[in-house]
Amino acid sequence: MIASPYLLYLGAAVDPLTVKTARGIAQWRPDRCLGQLRLPGATVTLGLEDLDVAEAARRGARTLVIGEANAGGRLSPDAIPVVLAALEAGMDVASGLHQKLSDVPAIREAALRLVRRLTDVREPPADLTVGKGVPRAGHRLLTVGTDCSVGKMYASLALERDMRAAGLRADFRATGQTGILITGEGAPVDAVIADFISGAVEAVSPARHDDGWDIIEGQGSLFHPSYAGVTLGLIHGAQPDALVLCHEPGRPHMRGVPGHAVPDLAVCLERNLEAARLTNPAVIAVGVALNTSALAPGAALELCAGVSEALGLPCQDPVAHGTHLIVDRLKSCFAPPLSVASAGR
Amino acid sequence: MIASPYLLYLGAAVDPLTVKTARGIAQWRPDRCLGQLRLPGATVTLGLEDLDVAEAARRGARTLVIGEANAGGRLSPDAIPVVLAALEAGMDVASGLHQKLSDVPAIREAALRLVRRLTDVREPPADLTVGKGVPRAGHRLLTVGTDCSVGKMYASLALERDMRAAGLRADFRATGQTGILITGEGAPVDAVIADFISGAVEAVSPARHDDGWDIIEGQGSLFHPSYAGVTLGLIHGAQPDALVLCHEPGRPHMRGVPGHAVPDLAVCLERNLEAARLTNPAVIAVGVALNTSALAPGAALELCAGVSEALGLPCQDPVAHGTHLIVDRLKSCFAPPLSVASAGR
Repeated sequence: MIASPYLLYLGAAVDPLTVKTARGIAQWRPDRCLGQLRLPGATVTLGLEDLDVAEAARRGARTLVIGEANAGGRLSPDAIPVVLAALEAGMDVASGLHQKLSDVPAIREAALRLVRRLTDVREPPADLTVGKGVPRAGHRLLTVGTDCSVGKMYASLALERDMRAAGLRADFRATGQTGILITGEGAPVDAVIADFISGAVEAVSPARHDDGWDIIEGQGSLFHPSYAGVTLGLIHGAQPDALVLCHEPGRPHMRGVPGHAVPDLAVCLERNLEAARLTNPAVIAVGVALNTSALAPGAALELCAGVSEALGLPCQDPVAHGTHLIVDRLKSCFAPPLSVASAGR
Repeated sequence: MIASPYLLYLGAAVDPLTVKTARGIAQWRPDRCLGQLRLPGATVTLGLEDLDVAEAARRGARTLVIGEANAGGRLSPDAIPVVLAALEAGMDVASGLHQKLSDVPAIREAALRLVRRLTDVREPPADLTVGKGVPRAGHRLLTVGTDCSVGKMYASLALERDMRAAGLRADFRATGQTGILITGEGAPVDAVIADFISGAVEAVSPARHDDGWDIIEGQGSLFHPSYAGVTLGLIHGAQPDALVLCHEPGRPHMRGVPGHAVPDLAVCLERNLEAARLTNPAVIAVGVALNTSALAPGAALELCAGVSEALGLPCQDPVAHGTHLIVDRLKSCFAPPLSVASAGR
């Protein structure tokens, strides 16, 4: 668990894309964010209060989060003195970069000396085991996708928000780096040893007995020739009761692999259900989440209506429309037996 | 590439199961095996000449292979002086144990000092990349299975032998630890980082332009809740033209996971073909390999005939019967166009 509240380090960012991770944290967990730290020259802001390390520490910041990703995923030299200052001020440091924090000798030494925690969220937990496929208690919803980067994390977080608003217990379970920084825990399933994919997901969403839901962040796609193995292991480990299919319309081909067509939505959904039945034969689909950010609002609504009609499922853009229709469907499909009986009278 | 010829270390083995790896090497690559090294008390033999390190080195042994697996996969204390003697005598050392050779300080120091190579075949190559799914030249056959440990490696090696006997160019491509020790190269796909599963298989079976076949060793099963992710990534990376389905009749449930039934052969084959079409839409099945070691010879032949009839494919036990019927089917399905035209006249 990464301790909050966070101080989000943005460096001297001038390109909003380089602070995507920090923006995700600020958007979905504003309560975990105490402020942002920017260097001279930065033009990007998350709308948080600008704090330096000393002031953030004084106000109780527990972790400096490296929220800037430069090309190559390396820690920029500018960041190193800030990281060292944060450690000296009593804070832990967390990063989603490729380069490990502890690979910088000065940082490693300071953290050891000061007994602070360095968290590299690309590093999987050390104590993983193989998945067992044994049915476990609790409800689980998994987001799956036609492709990589179609909005599975955003859909999952929107579902958590909207399920809570609808009176359900719901907890986002992170399986990727940004998700782990957002929620403070999870496992990067694409970075675990191949034998442990399903086991990592079983560990991320253990049995629960409070009638609540785990909303498990999906990864990749069964139709992506590079990453489908990760996706299948994730599906099996999740043992989902419910799937939400995520899709971004208009892609010319699967991400990064020209020549590989994006699958048809109905075919993709059926293949995901088929895969999920191995560890939960009762799995059903409860909705479709579209990323319509490239469309005009009217066209987006029209597209959602068409997909909804074609698949017989509620279809929404989680960012533009929320996910209340999908949550309604989920509630009606998983209503407790007593309520069903009452409704029938 | 692990240099041969090998000296196979069997320790003081009294249980044939503990030398399974060494037996596989001796059976499938007798030309790579110079002899066996046994300690006092050993009752198990591979039928090779007993040699000590000095004599083996004198006769040109290049690598000492730790061919004994004790419980826990640790190097037994008895083995350490033998390993050190082999290094001193100019040999490399290779092991399929969980414990890395270089984790034993005396071994690590001797190898560094003498500039000898320590190979732990559970360690994946360091330079892997993600799979790209780009169609590549050459023919590839992949063994897939209803379950783990149903004979995929043996079927692959028998196919290599019988395809060569039938005049085809064919090369076994190892994806597991024993296979890597048998053939001297390969990648342990279950031990790579999850994102690199398909990329590792692409690297193990690169494009070839000699009209020959790569026989790729399958792993796991699409129906195994612990390992299916590895299997799917392996299928996608292999881009197989031909599949051979491997099965051991009579299992009460999937290996290690009571409650998970072994899939129907026809369903399993169709699901594997469906998965393989993502990177090779032209993939076909060419046969079924049964491990009938638990059956009487007559019952084994009867079962093969029944499976062959039901699936419309040749079906043999690779160990008891060989794979010539499967090779015949492969040759007829992949005959060069000219031959097909000639046959039609």
